[in-house]
Amino acid sequence: MQRYFTDQVLQPGTSVQLDATATKHAVKVLRMQEGQQLELADAHGNVYLVTITGTDPLTVRAESDLHKNAELPVAVTIVCGVGKAQKPELITQKAVELGASRIVFANSQWATARWQDNKVAKKLERLQLVARGAAEQSHRNVVPTVEFLPKLTAASTIPADAQIIAYEESAKQGETAALVAALAQQPRTLTAVFGPEGGIAPEEVQELTAAGFVAAGLGPRILRTETAPLYLLSAISTITELMEGKTNIAAKNQ
Amino acid sequence: MQRYFTDQVLQPGTSVQLDATATKHAVKVLRMQEGQQLELADAHGNVYLVTITGTDPLTVRAESDLHKNAELPVAVTIVCGVGKAQKPELITQKAVELGASRIVFANSQWATARWQDNKVAKKLERLQLVARGAAEQSHRNVVPTVEFLPKLTAASTIPADAQIIAYEESAKQGETAALVAALAQQPRTLTAVFGPEGGIAPEEVQELTAAGFVAAGLGPRILRTETAPLYLLSAISTITELMEGKTNIAAKNQ
Repeated sequence: MQRYFTDQVLQPGTSVQLDATATKHAVKVLRMQEGQQLELADAHGNVYLVTITGTDPLTVRAESDLHKNAELPVAVTIVCGVGKAQKPELITQKAVELGASRIVFANSQWATARWQDNKVAKKLERLQLVARGAAEQSHRNVVPTVEFLPKLTAASTIPADAQIIAYEESAKQGETAALVAALAQQPRTLTAVFGPEGGIAPEEVQELTAAGFVAAGLGPRILRTETAPLYLLSAISTITELMEGKTNIAAKNQ
Repeated sequence: MQRYFTDQVLQPGTSVQLDATATKHAVKVLRMQEGQQLELADAHGNVYLVTITGTDPLTVRAESDLHKNAELPVAVTIVCGVGKAQKPELITQKAVELGASRIVFANSQWATARWQDNKVAKKLERLQLVARGAAEQSHRNVVPTVEFLPKLTAASTIPADAQIIAYEESAKQGETAALVAALAQQPRTLTAVFGPEGGIAPEEVQELTAAGFVAAGLGPRILRTETAPLYLLSAISTITELMEGKTNIAAKNQ
């Protein structure tokens, strides 16, 4: 079923008017009509079954809370160095699909390009739209925010229970335990920093490490800068959403 | 260090002439010269440190086996239904980075487009080049093959210890245990089938299920057709390459 988002809080019976983007998509693209139903996630991340009561603009009446949850148990902030070939749209779309709660792009020392101050707002506006589309498509409860930091190392200012740097040198040295160890502490929030195509400078790694970040390898293969965040999110989903059952089974058999 | 592939078998002292693609990349793009070193993976997947002895064409002398292994413990075949928006290049590049050993594209019932017989060879040739580039970049020991099947359900003819269908309906119903259970059997080979954008037809699911495939959910979010294989490969890497340490630790503490 099609899903949209509202910044209002729903209760059964609440009537909500959706914005121009949702109206256009539902009415022009999907040709939805009065009486048809869709899913609407509200400001609290609750997903309601709603019925269309008007199409210009799209207006709906909330029926019932569907009690659906597609959010990762860990709120993951992805911090990515930007560069020429950074593909921020691909990272944003895929990170949202894979459950990130916040996506932050940052200028960094070794990047081959930088986001200029006067272009940041426009880039974020565009990426926020990508995030919203991906959140609708993947049936997220919330739309992750897309943000910008002028320095990669400012990732340390984001409050988090666990802090990871995906560091290529760690992968090369065969480090595989740090991510699993971090998740074993059952963090509610986790920040993961990824370098741009040029890599993270040793001073940046040092600054982040001093702030509590742990260098983590993501398997023995060298991942491109846009692939590493997708691996990390899939790994966190695997451990927290797929493996839980296995742990229980293992415990039962003992 | 830069990595290339040869279909010869190396021993210390072996002299090998690389092909035009590798020559062009090393000499024209990277401007490598005689005496410089690189890594060369041979026909057996052994990675040698080699020294450049000539540049036109690129000729190298094998020095020593580096005993590097970046292959997943499970040989994973990814079978993807093709469609209009299938992005086979993206799937090929990312699946190689994430450790797939074989990537198969297939026509299927509900796909919005099909690969015509007379275009298959050219498409595969191009994708095989993408696979080679990704294998070099990600430091794989072997270049995965890219193949084509005229029917998605012919995935059942590929011999495998474990067979998975990534089925959106399973994800919606909250199925999360099948993939973990399949990996608990420690398969050496695994085939995973992914539908095209239009989805897998129930008859196709039925035919594959009858052949031994198990429907598996890949977490609670609805993944795009090109994202699901990347999640699966990351999940397999997490369980077989990152979690092994954790399992040992858990076992030790009991």
